[in-house]
Amino acid sequence: MLNFTMSLPTEVYFGQDMIADLKDHIKKFKGTRVLLAYGGGSIKKNGVYDKIVTLLNENGIFFKELAGIKPNPRISSVREGVKIIRENRLDFILAAGGGSVIDACKGMAAGAGYEGDPWDFYLHKAKLQAEPLPIGVILTLAATGSETNWGSVVSDDETERKLPFRHESLRPKFAVLDPVYTYSVPAYHTAAGIVDIMAHVFEQYFSPTKSTYLSDRLAEAVMKAVIHYAPVVMEQPDNYEARANILWAGTLALNQILTYGKVTDWATHMIEHEVSAIYDISHGAGLAVLFPSWMKFVLNDDTLPKFLEFSKNVWNIDPESGNDFELAMETIQRTSDFFKSLNMPSTLSEFNIDDSRLDEMAEKAVAFGDLGSFAKLGKDNVLEILRMSL
Amino acid sequence: MLNFTMSLPTEVYFGQDMIADLKDHIKKFKGTRVLLAYGGGSIKKNGVYDKIVTLLNENGIFFKELAGIKPNPRISSVREGVKIIRENRLDFILAAGGGSVIDACKGMAAGAGYEGDPWDFYLHKAKLQAEPLPIGVILTLAATGSETNWGSVVSDDETERKLPFRHESLRPKFAVLDPVYTYSVPAYHTAAGIVDIMAHVFEQYFSPTKSTYLSDRLAEAVMKAVIHYAPVVMEQPDNYEARANILWAGTLALNQILTYGKVTDWATHMIEHEVSAIYDISHGAGLAVLFPSWMKFVLNDDTLPKFLEFSKNVWNIDPESGNDFELAMETIQRTSDFFKSLNMPSTLSEFNIDDSRLDEMAEKAVAFGDLGSFAKLGKDNVLEILRMSL
Repeated sequence: MLNFTMSLPTEVYFGQDMIADLKDHIKKFKGTRVLLAYGGGSIKKNGVYDKIVTLLNENGIFFKELAGIKPNPRISSVREGVKIIRENRLDFILAAGGGSVIDACKGMAAGAGYEGDPWDFYLHKAKLQAEPLPIGVILTLAATGSETNWGSVVSDDETERKLPFRHESLRPKFAVLDPVYTYSVPAYHTAAGIVDIMAHVFEQYFSPTKSTYLSDRLAEAVMKAVIHYAPVVMEQPDNYEARANILWAGTLALNQILTYGKVTDWATHMIEHEVSAIYDISHGAGLAVLFPSWMKFVLNDDTLPKFLEFSKNVWNIDPESGNDFELAMETIQRTSDFFKSLNMPSTLSEFNIDDSRLDEMAEKAVAFGDLGSFAKLGKDNVLEILRMSL
Repeated sequence: MLNFTMSLPTEVYFGQDMIADLKDHIKKFKGTRVLLAYGGGSIKKNGVYDKIVTLLNENGIFFKELAGIKPNPRISSVREGVKIIRENRLDFILAAGGGSVIDACKGMAAGAGYEGDPWDFYLHKAKLQAEPLPIGVILTLAATGSETNWGSVVSDDETERKLPFRHESLRPKFAVLDPVYTYSVPAYHTAAGIVDIMAHVFEQYFSPTKSTYLSDRLAEAVMKAVIHYAPVVMEQPDNYEARANILWAGTLALNQILTYGKVTDWATHMIEHEVSAIYDISHGAGLAVLFPSWMKFVLNDDTLPKFLEFSKNVWNIDPESGNDFELAMETIQRTSDFFKSLNMPSTLSEFNIDDSRLDEMAEKAVAFGDLGSFAKLGKDNVLEILRMSL
C-alpha cells in the first residue's frame, strides 16, 4: 500500500425525497445567489426541474438558469456559465443532471475567479489559485462519480480536444442522490452509465501496486453489485433497490475510496476521450468498445495474476476450467459480453468510425506523455488498441 | 436501502512517516495550545512520543500532557483532561494512542464547553450544545475506528457503568495512520483489535434491512481482508503490508461506509460493555466470547439467509457440504475458531467470570431499552446469551 491522504468532504444526501432540505444545504455552504445549470431538458420532463424551482422560490433564493449543457460538455457552455455568474454576481452553482452538467459546472466554478479563459485549466496553462465557487449537485444519472469527486472533463469543438482538469477543491459541497430521479433515464444512457462505473473500477483495480488486498476486494464488491443489478435496471427501470444500489456504486466507484494506497491507470479513459472528442459518441459506449481491447492488449505473463483474480472473484469462473491464459481470455470475453448484454456496442465501426483518423487520436492521446501504469502505453500501443477496436 | 446522509469530514493521512506534517494539520484546524493525551506509555517505548514532542517543540506549539488513560477509559480521565484544558486555555486535543485514548479525548472535547459533569453526556442527561474542541489523532492500534467516527465509550468505576456517547461533531478533524506505529503492539492487543474490527462489521452486516447488496459485499471485503492478514500480523508483527491493510480495515469498518442505507444491530457491543464495566476485560476479548454466542442465539429460519451469505462469501464454505442450518452452525464455528486461532478466549470463565452477576449485567444492558435490530433482545435474551458464554 502506498501512502495517501483521504479527504472526502462532499456531503451526500441519499434516498427518496432527500431534495426536501435543499435550501438548508445551499445556505450551509453560503449560497445566496444561485446558478441553476442543467442539460437538455430531461429534468423538465421528470419533474425534477419543477421541484428545484419550487424549493428555490419558496425559500426566496435568487437564481439564474443555464440550460442546454450537452453530453461531452463544451467549453463554450463553461464560458457561458462564467459570464452569467459574473453578470449576476452569483455565489453558488447548483448542477442538476449527470456527469456532463457537473463537469461543466466545475469548469465554471474554477473559471469564475480567473481572469483568463477557463479552457486554460484543461490545457495545463493555468493553475487554480482562487477558491472555486461552491457547487451543489442534484444527480439524475448513475455514471461518472463527478458528484463527489475532484475531476472535470470538458471538450472543445474547435480543436476537437476533450481534456480532464482535476483539483481537490472542485469536489461539490453536497450531492442529492435520489434513485427515483434515475427511473426515467433511457435504456441507452442507463447502460452507458453502467459501463462507465465498471470502467472507473477497472482503472483503479488494474494497478501495478501490490499488497492492496483490501482495496481490491472493495473494488470487486462494487463490480459485483453493478453486475448483479445491471440486468434488473435494464428490465425494470423503476426498481428502487436496483437503481439505488447502482447509484451508490457509481459514487463509490470514483470518490477515491478505491484509489487510496495504489497507483491507478486511466489509459483507456484517455484514449476514449480522443475518440469522443472527434466523433461525439457517448463516453460509456466508447469505453464498452475500448476496454476489452485494452485488456487483450495488456494481458501478458506479468499482468496475468490480476486477470485471474478478476476471473475468480468477479466473474466466478472456475479456476479449473482452463489454463491461466484461457481463463484470462474467458474473463475478457465475459466482460465484453456483459457490455453487449446491455446493448452497448463492441466495435467502433458501429459508430461509423473508420481508420482514417486513428493516428491523429493516438497522437493526441499521448500529447502529455505516455499513458497508463498497469501497462505503459506509447503512441504505437494506443494506435494498436484503437485498431483492435474497429 | 434506507435513506442516509454521508458525511466523512475526517482527513486521514495514511502511511509511513505521514506524521511529518503534523504542525500543518494542527494549524489547519486552528490549534494553537494543545492537550497531548496518551495512555500507559507504549508511545514512549516505540518512539512515537518523542516524534510528536519534537514536532510540537520545533514548531513552537504550546502543549500540556495528560498521560495514563487506561483501556476502558474512565470518566475520571475525562474530567482530569477537562480540568487541564480549562486551566491552560487549550484549544486543540491531540490523541496519541488507540480507541481508549481517542474516546476519552472525545469526552474532553465535549466537556470543555459544558459547565456540568461530562458523564452527563453518556447518561443522556445532557446534549452537546457548544462545538466540541477539535481533535487530531495519532493512531497506534488498529481496532475501534474511533479515529474517524462519531462515537465515544467511557466507563465509570464507581457505578460500574460503561456507556456510549455519539455525536457527528465528535469526529476527529484529522487522523495520522502509520502502520509502523502498530508493529510494537503486543500480540494480545493486536488480536483483540482484530476481533473488534470483525465485530464492528458484524454489527452492520447482520442487519434486518433488505436490498443492501452493495453494502453487504463491501462488508465482506473488509472481513475477508482481516481474515487474510490476521495470521500474518500475528506471526510477523512488522509486516508492513499486513499491518497497513488491517489498519485501513479498522477505519473502514467503522467510519460509517458500511452502515449507509441500513439499520444496524450493536446488541453484542452493548452486552460486552456491561461485562467489561464490571470485570475490566479487554473489549475485543469480550467480543470474541460473546459474538459466537449471539450468533447461535439469533440463528433461526428468518435470519438463516444472512448466515448462508456469510458462510459462502466470507468463509468460502461449500453450499453443498450440509443442510442450511448445518452450514450456518459451521459458519459460527469457523468464526469462533478464527478468534481462538488468535489466542482469544472463547468463554467468560477464562476471565474467572462466574454466574454471580449475570442478572445484573443483563439488567443494565437493557437500561435504555431492548437491544438489537437483526434480532430484538430483552433482558431474558441477554441473560441467556451471557449464560451461553460462561
